[in-house]
Formats: sequence, structure tokens, C-alpha cells
Amino acid sequence: MQITLTEVGPRDGLQNERRSVSIEQKIELITRVAAAGIRRFEATSFVSPRAVPALSDAEDVLRGIPQREKLILEALVPNMRGAERAAQVGLDEWVCFASASESHSQANSNTNTDEALNRLIPVIRLAEEQGVTAVGAIATSFGCPFEGEVPAARVVEVARRMADMGIKTVKLGDTIGTAAPSQVTRLIDAVRTTLPDITIVLHFHNTRGMSLTNVQAGIAAGIDRYESALGGVGGCPFAPGATGNVASEDLVHFLHLEGHQTGVDLTRLIEAGHWFETLLDRQLPAHLLRAKPVGEIYNTAK
Amino acid sequence: MQITLTEVGPRDGLQNERRSVSIEQKIELITRVAAAGIRRFEATSFVSPRAVPALSDAEDVLRGIPQREKLILEALVPNMRGAERAAQVGLDEWVCFASASESHSQANSNTNTDEALNRLIPVIRLAEEQGVTAVGAIATSFGCPFEGEVPAARVVEVARRMADMGIKTVKLGDTIGTAAPSQVTRLIDAVRTTLPDITIVLHFHNTRGMSLTNVQAGIAAGIDRYESALGGVGGCPFAPGATGNVASEDLVHFLHLEGHQTGVDLTRLIEAGHWFETLLDRQLPAHLLRAKPVGEIYNTAK
Repeated sequence: MQITLTEVGPRDGLQNERRSVSIEQKIELITRVAAAGIRRFEATSFVSPRAVPALSDAEDVLRGIPQREKLILEALVPNMRGAERAAQVGLDEWVCFASASESHSQANSNTNTDEALNRLIPVIRLAEEQGVTAVGAIATSFGCPFEGEVPAARVVEVARRMADMGIKTVKLGDTIGTAAPSQVTRLIDAVRTTLPDITIVLHFHNTRGMSLTNVQAGIAAGIDRYESALGGVGGCPFAPGATGNVASEDLVHFLHLEGHQTGVDLTRLIEAGHWFETLLDRQLPAHLLRAKPVGEIYNTAK
Repeated sequence: MQITLTEVGPRDGLQNERRSVSIEQKIELITRVAAAGIRRFEATSFVSPRAVPALSDAEDVLRGIPQREKLILEALVPNMRGAERAAQVGLDEWVCFASASESHSQANSNTNTDEALNRLIPVIRLAEEQGVTAVGAIATSFGCPFEGEVPAARVVEVARRMADMGIKTVKLGDTIGTAAPSQVTRLIDAVRTTLPDITIVLHFHNTRGMSLTNVQAGIAAGIDRYESALGGVGGCPFAPGATGNVASEDLVHFLHLEGHQTGVDLTRLIEAGHWFETLLDRQLPAHLLRAKPVGEIYNTAK
């Protein structure tokens, strides 16, 4: 199967990093991953600079990306203030998010889910006026740190609200890394039953080592879009204990071994991962930064 | 599904540890894991003490385990010298191994696979005389560090030779952590086609983050026996780059979330993992030593 990956390291990865990363370094991160063959990026976020200071340079990063016409650039756009900023920089897609759980919505967006969804209406209208695609993202689609397991019906309801606003693609986010594959299968089924035409994107964290099992469940269900972060950086600032998106290196390696195509040069992606590790000055969780790709062992062997 | 786990930390985990672990500490490791509900142990190895000095205390460890009648104790028994030692200590099962790849066999057993298999014949005969069950273990069942991917037909041939010697249970070892789930499915199918009555045990390493995806493939094929090591310790001394069995904590957590039964108290197992981490004085790779079990988050949440 041809798989489309979205690199979320520049957004989900960097929003939490203690080490300050400069505009030039963020641009280099995107450029290196793009050179390895990933075309889609969740490049930054237009949240309040006070809430997430690490991403307050959103405009400068986006404007500085070379050859951006070759890439599909997404950014989080939570509200009209963010949308007005985003409208100035020519993004391809605005990611409009809400939490499936009320408590996470309060912690993350300072409002309940219903009101968070209402706030998206003018954002999506402005996106349409700008000729930009609005996509939905549902945080805590599998579990909430405050409420526990999130019922599939709740996620479906949020997705349905988004679809009613004109959204055609929905990202299901395993914000705190609690999803297990049978739950992934059930949620995909539930979303498709209500919204058969929606495109589903899966976003997993490897907090409990299950991210690739969840990808495997997604693949079995025919889902061809996944999000990952270089090195396995990431987490959610308002979800205690949440650490580590599935690493782009590990995901690409796994997909290739399983016979899928990603268009990514794994060797170059791993080189980018090592560069990122040096930049952040800490060991990152990606397994492929410690162990050789299977294909490389086998080539050496033969 | 009811799953039976074998804890291999005392053997596969400790054979490589730099830090010296005393007889009493090895016994405590087994006792703590047993108290969490794991009943089967690959407790040690009767290889040459010169080859693996860390396990030269095999007899003392086995004799020191309290309430051993409640446990099923296995140990590696590679040859007649080992068998004569093993016969003195009343094990339940002798693990007789061979490598599916010739080069790994040379590196690991200093002989080719055919001769390694021939050496097992008197060992298995002695096991029968002693009323001990001989089980087979096939190293490099998926990939070899020297030869690359190991063809399923080769593994089936080794398993068939073992079955001809009277062995009824075969462990398929992913010695260097290269297995991917579709390969697991194919190998199980191939073994079953030739040997429909053999019991298969799966032994995965998490070197490239794929161990649980391989368990998932095993589960889908109906395999109910897996090996793991507390904390995710382990590796093979003769397989460069091989590190980390699938962690017992991560495996039990995953299986429970997926609705399977293991008889293991995850909380106590994680406590044992933290104890083991202190003992070895390093951070171990088990995810559940860093992140709370999903069930615990959800209990706190509700």
C-alpha cells in the first residue's frame, strides 16, 4: 500500500522541548526531513505565543522554508486570532482541533468541547475564503488523562460535527499513548459507519510501546495516512506523562519491511534523526537511531 | 485467549550483563517475577562456564529457588557436558537449541547446524531417561547477523529434525530483532504445514521496536506462548547489535489491554522491574517502567 506520512516533529515535537530551537534550526529540521522524502509537515502552530512560547516564531519558520511549493505545509490553527496570522503565510492546510474529552478540552483549550467546536466555524469559513483546506484533529481520541478511556461514540460525535462544518479529513490523536490495536480497529469502524466518506489520519504516541501495533491495526483497516515525529520526540503539554510520538525512522522502517511504500529514503531519514539528536543534545527514543535497519544488516550480510 | 509466558531474563537477560549479579540476586529475580504470577522460567544455561561466565552458577541458582515445585523451570542444555550437570538439579525442561543459519551456528556453537543438531540426540535421550521434557529452540529463526534473512524452509527443516528426535515444542527465536509481523505469519504457517502437531513458542527482541507487532501477528495466528525478559534486558553475545528481549512488563500490559489473560499481576511485575533496574544500576528499556499502565491511569481518572 502507498502510505502518506506527515512529519509532526516541528510542531508536536518541539512544542515541549526544553532546549530552545532557533528559527534556522527549525527550518533545517524540515529541510532535512523533506530531503529524505517526506512531503507533508505539521510545521508549526498558531496557538497563543503565551501558551506555547516555543512555537511563537510560526510565521518566520514557514516563510523561511526553501522550495515550499514542493511540500504540503500544515499548521495548527485553534481560533480566529490564529487564523488571521495563518492567513498571512500561505499554508496548504489548517489543522482545526478539538478534544474528545471535556476535561482535556478544558485543560488544553480552556473551554468545553462544544464551544471549542463552535470556535472552529469562523476559522473554517476563513480557510474556505482563503482557498486553504481545513482538516480536523481530535485530541484524546482513545484515552484522556483525566477521564480514562474515551468512548468511540464520543469521538464519532466530534468527527460528525467537524464533517458538518465541511471538514473532509480527520486526524485521530492518541494524545497520551493509551491506544491498543483492537481499540483502533473499533474506532475506525465506528467513524466509518457514521462518516463513510471521511479520510482518517492516525496519530500515535509510543508511550507504552504500542504505537506500531496500532499502525498495524490501521493498515489492516486500510488506513494509508499516519503522523510521526523524527527521533520520536513529542508529547502534549497538558497531558501528564505523555511522551513521544511514534518515531518517523521506526515507522518508515516498519512500513517498508511490511511491503508498503512511503517514498522515503530511510538512510537519509536516520541521518536527519542523528542530526536532530545532536541538536537537542539528548538521546531520542527512535530505535533506528540505535540499531541498523534490517535491510542494511542484510545487505552487509550478503 | 489464555497466554503462557516464559520469563527469560535470568538467562537471556543476565548472560550479557556487565554488572555481576550474585546467586542470591538471581534467585530474588526469579522469586519476584514468580510472585507477580509468571510460572515458567528459562532460569539459566548449562553452557560452558568459560563461554558464559555470568551463568556459571547455574546449579546454585536452581537449587536456591524457593517453592520451585510451583514453577516450571527450564534451562539451556547445549550438549552432553551440560546435560550431565543439568541432570543433577531436577529441571522440568531442557532447552536444546540450534541456529537456523550456519554462520550463527559457527559463531554461537562453534559447529554447523547439522552437527549442532546431532549433538542434541544423546541430550534428548538422557532427558527422556530422566523423565525431563526436552524442548527445541531455533536461534536466528527470522534473521542472521551474518547471512541476512533466514528462509522459512530452513527453519522448518531444523524444526523437523528436532521433531524427528522426539521434540514436541519448538521456540522460534528472533535473535537479532529483525522479525516483522508478516514474516512471523509466514513462518508460523510454514512450520505448521510441515509439523501440524508441534507447539510453537515465540521469542522476540525489541531491537527495532517491532516486538509487540510480532506478538500481535502470533496472537492472530493463535499462538499462546511467548517469552520475555523483565525490564527488556537481554541480547545474544554472538549477534552484534542485538539488544533487548521484549519487556515482560510491556508484553503483559499489551496482552491485558487486548483482552487476553496471563495470570500476571502487572503492578507487582512493574515493581519487580523497578527493583531489577536498581539492581543493574541502569535505566532498562521497558516502557512500563516510565509510563503508567493504561488501566491505572483510567482508575485514577474515574
